[in-house]
This record gives sequence, structure tokens and C-alpha cells, in this order.
Amino acid sequence: MKIDVCFTPNDFTSKDYYGYHAVVIDVLRATTSIATACANGCQCVIPVKTVEEAFSLKAQNPDAVLAGERSGLLIPGFDLGNSPFEYTKDRISGKIIVMTTTNGTLALNKVVAAQKIYVMAFANAASIVTALHQAQENTIIVCAGSEGKFSLEDALCAGLAAECLSHEAELSDTALAAQAMYRDFAADLFTRVSQSSHADYLCSIGFKKDVALCLQQNTIAVVPVFAANAITA
Amino acid sequence: MKIDVCFTPNDFTSKDYYGYHAVVIDVLRATTSIATACANGCQCVIPVKTVEEAFSLKAQNPDAVLAGERSGLLIPGFDLGNSPFEYTKDRISGKIIVMTTTNGTLALNKVVAAQKIYVMAFANAASIVTALHQAQENTIIVCAGSEGKFSLEDALCAGLAAECLSHEAELSDTALAAQAMYRDFAADLFTRVSQSSHADYLCSIGFKKDVALCLQQNTIAVVPVFAANAITA
Repeated sequence: MKIDVCFTPNDFTSKDYYGYHAVVIDVLRATTSIATACANGCQCVIPVKTVEEAFSLKAQNPDAVLAGERSGLLIPGFDLGNSPFEYTKDRISGKIIVMTTTNGTLALNKVVAAQKIYVMAFANAASIVTALHQAQENTIIVCAGSEGKFSLEDALCAGLAAECLSHEAELSDTALAAQAMYRDFAADLFTRVSQSSHADYLCSIGFKKDVALCLQQNTIAVVPVFAANAITA
Repeated sequence: MKIDVCFTPNDFTSKDYYGYHAVVIDVLRATTSIATACANGCQCVIPVKTVEEAFSLKAQNPDAVLAGERSGLLIPGFDLGNSPFEYTKDRISGKIIVMTTTNGTLALNKVVAAQKIYVMAFANAASIVTALHQAQENTIIVCAGSEGKFSLEDALCAGLAAECLSHEAELSDTALAAQAMYRDFAADLFTRVSQSSHADYLCSIGFKKDVALCLQQNTIAVVPVFAANAITA
């Protein structure tokens, strides 16, 4: 199997990756929150691009939970922000979550034509790596990035997958690069990722605990899969 | 000073980097050949985007040397290809070289509005790092990449610069990533970069010696600068 990495959603085209499985990563914080929600028994997460779409879906499903962020903050009229700490069993068990975030849900919608779409974060990395190992399919890992730009933490999470699969997969240039980044950062991930621009921004608006949680590896055993417009475990 | 890296020329916009100095890297092989040409006493290198522009400039300067490649190979009617081994003193000393390559000369033309533009490869890395250290200016390192896509060897060369300047510069996410890649690859650069797609392609068309030469560090002490449409030492 081939493993390739797009450092931003802009680098992804359906044509280049026809027949591939896809993995979407937005470590800070969308895919960590989605993995948490799936582990805590939500019915599904429906990722949408705009706040308007979210309200429109809520109108059709009055029990749905509206979740997401703009500029990292709770959206007025929404139930939950984008912190994984908010996605507790008492709030989301059995619920449909309609979610819109700046980068993660956009990236999910970009790869919607892929054969199969996994949702990955450091939190559920081992589960996703196991799923990719079992599938043995060509896979494109798409980093959500930050407003179209490279995000260090997403690339490092892609690099963790590349490192784990390097003995059985053919790695592209970007996968080799991500693997090398991860290997260099691994021993001191939290301290060094705190230097990254998005981690720094989240800390500045009060989410230092979120950053610490999102950089912990293998805290959740869940394989969220995005199909037919919804993510389920 | 800030050090930022664009992994492809598409990531560069003049607006984002207003007032910055720029460094252009196309390790395999344009910027290695340009550094070699400057070290061997060419009058200047004029980078152009198209074969037609090159022939047009040659018509105006009959003594000019036409150089470059398409798909890695000599362009029909041109004097030199894109191998640094071709840019010998006897061929290019005192000459105007008009050069067009698939990625490197395109990248140079993309950053043309920058305050100052340096041409870097592994071959002249130490000289460029010294120049950046002395300048103490915000700098954007633009990797030429490969037909709009990420190139491992260019990112690693950017990472070498980031690593050398890390104690005095503020590194962006991409600069931190490139630095980490370089640190992980450094001990065995040639063997591991040979896995990269462009190195593999060049080896397949007979340029294994070029790849080996282009990955050697600090073999030339030269600081090529691109200004007023021409590169001079």
C-alpha cells in the first residue's frame, strides 16, 4: 500500500487520489473532539461547512446538538464549542452532533469522494493505524491545516501514522517528511508543539488544557468513519 | 528575524511576505547548477520561464549560453542541460547564461518582488546561512518543489538553513517542520533522499552522479543574488 500526505486540504484533488482511502487530521481540535464524541456514544457527527447549514440541519432535527467554533470560540446560538472536554457522555450520548469548524470540517468535506474516510487525532492514533494496517489500501492522509496553511501538529500526527506503517507501506515524499518530523519531535512533543502558531493561539485564548489533551496519544480506542454525510464509530 | 518556509512556490504570495528577503532552493538541480555557474565565473544567469523566452534573449545576445531542461533532459537547440557538471569554467566563464527549468526558474520568477533574493543549494548552504545571519532580515525560503508539489530535498535544504539559524531566528511552523526533517535525515542524507521521487526519477534517466553531487554540503563558497532579472555572485 502507498501512504501519501497532503499538508493542507488545498493539496488534495480527487483525481490524484482516485480509489484511495482518506484520513483527515485536525489535532487542534476538531478531530480530537470528533473522536471523543464517538467514544462517548454520540449517534453521529455531521460535519458542515457553514453556520447557516448547521442551523438549517438543527431546524430539521430539533434534538441535534450544534457544535463547533469560529476563531476558536463558541458560535453564538450553538450548544458546544470545539473543546474535547465538552463532548461528555451526559451531553452527547445518543445525540446527532452537527459540527462546523474553521479547518477540520472543511477538510472532511473536501475528501468526501474518497473510498473510505477515517477521522484521526493523536488521541485515537493507534486505532486508526490498526485500521489502515488491516485495510492495506492506498491511503492519503489530509492535514486540515490552518486556514489553508500548514499546521505543525497535523503534520506530526500524519508522521506518527507514517512511522507506524513505514515497514509495510511505500511512503511518498510528504509521508517521508512527516515521518522525519515526527521522529525528531517525538521525545518532547508537547513542549515543542507549544511553539506552533495554532497551539500558541489556543493557549492565548485560554485553551492550554485542550492543547495538552489533544497532544496525548492513544487515550481513546475508536475508529470514526465518515460516510453518507455522517461520522460514526 | 523571522524565518519562514514555503514548501512550494504556490504557497508564496508577495502580500504575505512584503519586505522579506527570499531564498530560492531547487537542489535537484537548478540552484546547484546556478551556484556552480556563479562560482565558475559566468557573467550572470538570466532565469526565464519558457523556451521561447530563452531563444528570444539568445537572438538579442548571440554570445549567450542557452541552458536548462524539460523532463530533466537537454532542450533541443540548447547548449547546456541542467547538470552542475556541465557548468565548467571553459564553457561558461564570462558568459551570460539564459536558463529555463521546470521548477527552479519558475520559483525565482515567482518571488521577483522580494527585497533581496538569494539562490541556495546544499552546495553553497554555509555561504547563504552566513549571508542571512549578517543581514538579520525576515526571510522566506521558497522551495521550488516539483511541478507544484512538495520536494523532499528542497525542504531538507530549507531545514538545514532553519537549523543553522534557529538560535537567533523566530521559526514559523513550516521552518520548525523543515528543521525537524533535516535533523532526522542529516546522518544519512544521501541514502534516504535517494528514496525521494525526484531523486529516483533523475537516477532512472542516468543522473545518479548529479544527485550525489547535489546532496554534498558546502562544496562552493558563493552567494548568488537575483536582482534586475539576472543572478550574479
